[in-house]
Amino acid sequence: MKAFEQNIRKVEPYVPGEQPRHKVIKLNTNENPYPPAPGVTKALREMDTDRLRLYPDPAADVLVGALADYYKVGKDQVFVGVGSDDVLAMCFLTFFNSDKPVLFPDITYSFYKVWAELYRIPYECQKLDDDFRIVKEDYYKENGGVIFPNPNAPTALYEELDAVEDIIAHNKDAVVIVDEAYIDFAGRSALELTDKYDNLLVVQTFSKARSMAGMRIGYAIGSPLLIKYLNDAKYSFNSYTMNETSLVCGVEAVKNRAYFEEGIRRIVETREWSKQELAKLGFCFLDSSANFIFAMHPEYDAKKLFEELKANGIYVRYWGTARIEQYMRISVGTREEMEALFAFFRQYMNR
Amino acid sequence: MKAFEQNIRKVEPYVPGEQPRHKVIKLNTNENPYPPAPGVTKALREMDTDRLRLYPDPAADVLVGALADYYKVGKDQVFVGVGSDDVLAMCFLTFFNSDKPVLFPDITYSFYKVWAELYRIPYECQKLDDDFRIVKEDYYKENGGVIFPNPNAPTALYEELDAVEDIIAHNKDAVVIVDEAYIDFAGRSALELTDKYDNLLVVQTFSKARSMAGMRIGYAIGSPLLIKYLNDAKYSFNSYTMNETSLVCGVEAVKNRAYFEEGIRRIVETREWSKQELAKLGFCFLDSSANFIFAMHPEYDAKKLFEELKANGIYVRYWGTARIEQYMRISVGTREEMEALFAFFRQYMNR
Repeated sequence: MKAFEQNIRKVEPYVPGEQPRHKVIKLNTNENPYPPAPGVTKALREMDTDRLRLYPDPAADVLVGALADYYKVGKDQVFVGVGSDDVLAMCFLTFFNSDKPVLFPDITYSFYKVWAELYRIPYECQKLDDDFRIVKEDYYKENGGVIFPNPNAPTALYEELDAVEDIIAHNKDAVVIVDEAYIDFAGRSALELTDKYDNLLVVQTFSKARSMAGMRIGYAIGSPLLIKYLNDAKYSFNSYTMNETSLVCGVEAVKNRAYFEEGIRRIVETREWSKQELAKLGFCFLDSSANFIFAMHPEYDAKKLFEELKANGIYVRYWGTARIEQYMRISVGTREEMEALFAFFRQYMNR
Repeated sequence: MKAFEQNIRKVEPYVPGEQPRHKVIKLNTNENPYPPAPGVTKALREMDTDRLRLYPDPAADVLVGALADYYKVGKDQVFVGVGSDDVLAMCFLTFFNSDKPVLFPDITYSFYKVWAELYRIPYECQKLDDDFRIVKEDYYKENGGVIFPNPNAPTALYEELDAVEDIIAHNKDAVVIVDEAYIDFAGRSALELTDKYDNLLVVQTFSKARSMAGMRIGYAIGSPLLIKYLNDAKYSFNSYTMNETSLVCGVEAVKNRAYFEEGIRRIVETREWSKQELAKLGFCFLDSSANFIFAMHPEYDAKKLFEELKANGIYVRYWGTARIEQYMRISVGTREEMEALFAFFRQYMNR
């Protein structure tokens, strides 16, 4: 080891979900099987590319404005970032500066733990119950902040808004972040609570229901007070994060409500049908409210199944970690993609 | 103050350089006055926007490959990020984990200090000499890393490669980062030293000579060892940072060497002519090797001049901080923009 390596940060090298270049059925990263709104293509085709020589608007005003209009909130209630990962990391840095532990579920989005460790924020995982549900009473204890996804990932379980509000109401002295990456496939959003609770921040993304994982756009909506703190933190160390094409394309995606809603309808329809097919095949699965299904088969080892699928050009996600060793996460693709998946299962299981 | 505000990070709210929406002569943020390479526009027009529904390649392979080809280094020697600010912040986080202070000049890019404070990295500023030059001997002392821009900003002064190498050679037990945002307008790059010194990292950007500030693309080139550490850190907490359009447009910008070189030639020509004009007007200025000129006038107060310019629709940059109270930074625009600037000065000064 070189002398200068002693001062280099050592991390556990993380391998992101595979992005295969060859043709596969890709049900491993919860992407949307349908393209973004037609306006997005049009915006890129017509873009004034001379504008690219200039720095983008650091306040991302056009995109913030479009989101404020869509969700009927003030522009001072919206913060945008380079995907919800960027937004969430900024939230950890901004809001979780306490000596008390931040609380989040034991089975949840894996980056919460990573950001807490990166920024040296104490944290304490709260165990999901045996049905993989969030136990709201676990979040009553003293803490330095609370964060959980709703629907949770990778369980795909949605907690009713009453339960979400109960957690927020019990934590008025801390910032509560509800990570709603999958809310559009689920039910009522906590957005309607942002007027009532100024300690609530709701984080959403363009990567799922808006079909724009490739553009990296996420946002947070909350009280003007929280948004101001987020912007202050952001401006203080990286002013220009959203590139010009994200701003322009993001606006177009937000404007087309009909396309957005129709896309969600199709995915939810395919999901519900897929649940029936999985049940017929003997799978057990949690009652998904997201664009993926967390499933296991009592007779087939998950790791083996995952590998067989991959060998046959069908990619799903498998972790093999505590409590979820026998589960796979299957993103909801097109009807055709799901048919191919089930055809493989039928053949493999001789059903 | 709300109870939950106690745990929120307090920062000095930073106001980024203005991005006026109305028509002004914008010489305040060192943007390129010429548009990006024609291939960039073509790439956006022809882009397969269906691809946007998928996450971008986290390894940014196409862009890394294009840069590796251009600079004749291995793909394992290139790291890319969302503008050089993102790359530099990642470098601070990855490489500067020592209890010893990181060294950088007292007058330099203002974000070095911000990132050091953000990540709780000890640092010690080294005073530029009375001619605003880096004193290489100041960087011989024990340290936790070294970073400086070359050319430095906002001085625009270029240090010859011998001096740069001397600093690197005296710091083989630390990582030395040479921030070359403006190198294309200057002289020999430290890139040629990366084979010789595996503790050297050179950071460059698409925002200046490549006319793509609006796309947010920066990169680092160094030994495979350093690049591996950077990638490990990046993947460990944010896998997808570069959006699809940045990857596609970035490749096109890199491919067109002739356009790139011609753009630099024009800016350097305008800069040299501008120096003569400034001298005629009685300005004093440092001998710029960048796409901006750091200038002061012995008879006119810089703040007042800055405000008068702004009132007349000409934006330059002014800090008013210690040692540089009487300086303004003027980006090199088109010949026509510079003529308008000098016409204003002639009228204002009755010359």
